[in-house]
Amino acid sequence: MKAAIISIGDELLIGQTVNTNAAWLGKELSSRGIPVYASWAIADDPEEIITAIDQLRTKVGLILMTGGLGPTKDDLTKHTLTKYFNTELEIVPEVLVRIEEFFAKRGREMLDVNVQQAALPKDCTVLHNYHGTACGMWFEKDGCVIISMPGVPYEMKGIMMDEVFPKLKDHFELSEIYHQTLMTQGIGESFLAEQFKDWETKVRDRGFGLAYLPSPGLVRLRITSNQGKKDATEIQNLLTEVFEELPRNAYCIGEKSIFEFVGDLLKKNKMTIGTIESCTGGHIAEQIVSIPGSSVYFEGGIIAYSYDQKVKLVGVNQEDLLKHGAVSEEIIRQMATNGRLKLGVDVCIATSGIAGPDGGTEDKPVGSVWIAVATKDEVVLKLFRFGDNRERNIHMTALSAMNLVRCQLQGISFEKKID
Amino acid sequence: MKAAIISIGDELLIGQTVNTNAAWLGKELSSRGIPVYASWAIADDPEEIITAIDQLRTKVGLILMTGGLGPTKDDLTKHTLTKYFNTELEIVPEVLVRIEEFFAKRGREMLDVNVQQAALPKDCTVLHNYHGTACGMWFEKDGCVIISMPGVPYEMKGIMMDEVFPKLKDHFELSEIYHQTLMTQGIGESFLAEQFKDWETKVRDRGFGLAYLPSPGLVRLRITSNQGKKDATEIQNLLTEVFEELPRNAYCIGEKSIFEFVGDLLKKNKMTIGTIESCTGGHIAEQIVSIPGSSVYFEGGIIAYSYDQKVKLVGVNQEDLLKHGAVSEEIIRQMATNGRLKLGVDVCIATSGIAGPDGGTEDKPVGSVWIAVATKDEVVLKLFRFGDNRERNIHMTALSAMNLVRCQLQGISFEKKID
Repeated sequence: MKAAIISIGDELLIGQTVNTNAAWLGKELSSRGIPVYASWAIADDPEEIITAIDQLRTKVGLILMTGGLGPTKDDLTKHTLTKYFNTELEIVPEVLVRIEEFFAKRGREMLDVNVQQAALPKDCTVLHNYHGTACGMWFEKDGCVIISMPGVPYEMKGIMMDEVFPKLKDHFELSEIYHQTLMTQGIGESFLAEQFKDWETKVRDRGFGLAYLPSPGLVRLRITSNQGKKDATEIQNLLTEVFEELPRNAYCIGEKSIFEFVGDLLKKNKMTIGTIESCTGGHIAEQIVSIPGSSVYFEGGIIAYSYDQKVKLVGVNQEDLLKHGAVSEEIIRQMATNGRLKLGVDVCIATSGIAGPDGGTEDKPVGSVWIAVATKDEVVLKLFRFGDNRERNIHMTALSAMNLVRCQLQGISFEKKID
Repeated sequence: MKAAIISIGDELLIGQTVNTNAAWLGKELSSRGIPVYASWAIADDPEEIITAIDQLRTKVGLILMTGGLGPTKDDLTKHTLTKYFNTELEIVPEVLVRIEEFFAKRGREMLDVNVQQAALPKDCTVLHNYHGTACGMWFEKDGCVIISMPGVPYEMKGIMMDEVFPKLKDHFELSEIYHQTLMTQGIGESFLAEQFKDWETKVRDRGFGLAYLPSPGLVRLRITSNQGKKDATEIQNLLTEVFEELPRNAYCIGEKSIFEFVGDLLKKNKMTIGTIESCTGGHIAEQIVSIPGSSVYFEGGIIAYSYDQKVKLVGVNQEDLLKHGAVSEEIIRQMATNGRLKLGVDVCIATSGIAGPDGGTEDKPVGSVWIAVATKDEVVLKLFRFGDNRERNIHMTALSAMNLVRCQLQGISFEKKID
């Protein structure tokens, strides 16, 4: 059984919105063993919607459509589908109640257009939306399941997780796919591939799928079996071989962000953490805080962006700052050690670097970033050389900093060196 | 004349790569008056490539394909097109020289697979790639131009700018599309639609396209004319009508993030800004810093996540904190006013709220967030009620805070009230 994705919306075609929905759906479907045959973005146009469904339903058993279900007039999908399936709209009382609650909870007035969102085609299975007011709809035609959802990403994701995936499991007999993933930070895809060439052959000879899934600063190594959970132990053992070879890079087996992993370590050790950020401008703290429950270990931080704030808020020595510059071993050390005392935390991360696009020098090109991690026993510091891209440099710094914290908490030594 | 985009690659279908190429092409094409009819992502499969071309060339005059031209084995597009156009491959000496130079410059060894990249179909116009080794190809069939380019974004963009757009201008007589967008914050799509119902009718009666483009916390209102720039003034006037009705929500005409807009305001006023964040945990600072050049106005901030840090770093009164709780009018006021002095900035943003998923009470449910903005003259404070989603609440808080700053800098009054 294959799936097709239809993303509806002029904003996708004119490039005002990047189609992250299609990527998310592709990832979730393929991880559940449903291959994606094609992913089409089309206009908010009844004729185009119908043509797309008619063409794709001859090729696949499942069509997932997103977009065109909002309350405003440019949203046509619901009416188009109602006509296509030769049915009519009818207010669903249960949905109306939920929409009313949605507005009441937010202290907002409910308008007639919102009432109309409770009107749904008679012949569909309603897919409830617990994050917004536009429901999803599940139709069937000649053996093909056709699902329509709103285009707002977190609403669509909510409907998929709450409603669609459980129903799909019941509806289709899916071949059971089993994945397991090794998470690594700070080592490139080609280095991994080179270092584990023989291991890769072994994995493939066993009939497993192997994928290197790189994103800036991280590579996930995923083994897939189409025999299901019975291969779990064998796959775990294979990944453990790589895990044990790479103590500085491989941080866990199983999908987990390094922020969550370090959070768990801190909780286990009953330790607190804080941040003194310059070039990352709050990104590390933000990523730590994005983990629910982080208030147990995250105390707070200082964003010491300007020279002034480094002196005033963190107590960096002004003379040293002028002598060495903010992006220096001396200053990063002071930021981490003074910061730890100021914040009164067990572990303090400090960052100072040149994120770009401007500000680089011959000595310290754009992408040079010092990271330090101070505990009561020691300060670990390291100079990294990332690339030209500001956003990427900031993100790589955050990931590298968390990996340094992890190594320190786990007693994995890190020589101080240029990476 | 319309265009279609075909993005080739399994990595797009399984969601390993987000299709930013399609968004970029959509934006560039529509800004040059070429509407995009559809954008398809398909598998690295000869049959699928041919089916897609055959279906789309009956609908459009231009097909832009990306992907499948690299040196590795899974890249099939070139061979598929050579067969499709009934021609053969032939080494192009000029291209071979450039590939040789490319490798020499980087001090890398050239492999046979790289030599083969200079082999191109006899019947195509070569589109030179000055950023990589895989050339683009321009074919024509029954009045449809079919272009194939590599999928690496900066190589594709280079070929489009250097080669494709100049050639397209010569080849087609293009109808010119013109868009303009009004940016709003803090007002829902349905409220906008309701409030501007008559205006919407006027816009549509005039023959313009109108779209509401919502994302959490923001709605963009876009008017489109297919008569090109000659309608610019009329569209500007139409958007200005809405802009003037919504001083607290509409912040500018033209695509600009609110962080950038506020940054420009601060620069113009030669003012500095700082942040005292609790529930947003650094997100506001991070978003401010993500704008290149923000170091001119952004001084720094404090992430006062725990009670302790609010007292220690920001100087909030401990008794008041225990009496009122962190999410209260009294404490947010102290955070903003004390914070402004601590940071020594002209404008200080403070946030304190319950981002969720836990921590809500009957009085202060999840999603309750106080935001304050302090200047030397006044403190504006406002209690917001967002929803249940932590990530969304944090982002909505950041956007709302920036909008409060904007209103204050522009002298737009904001009553203190529950929203």
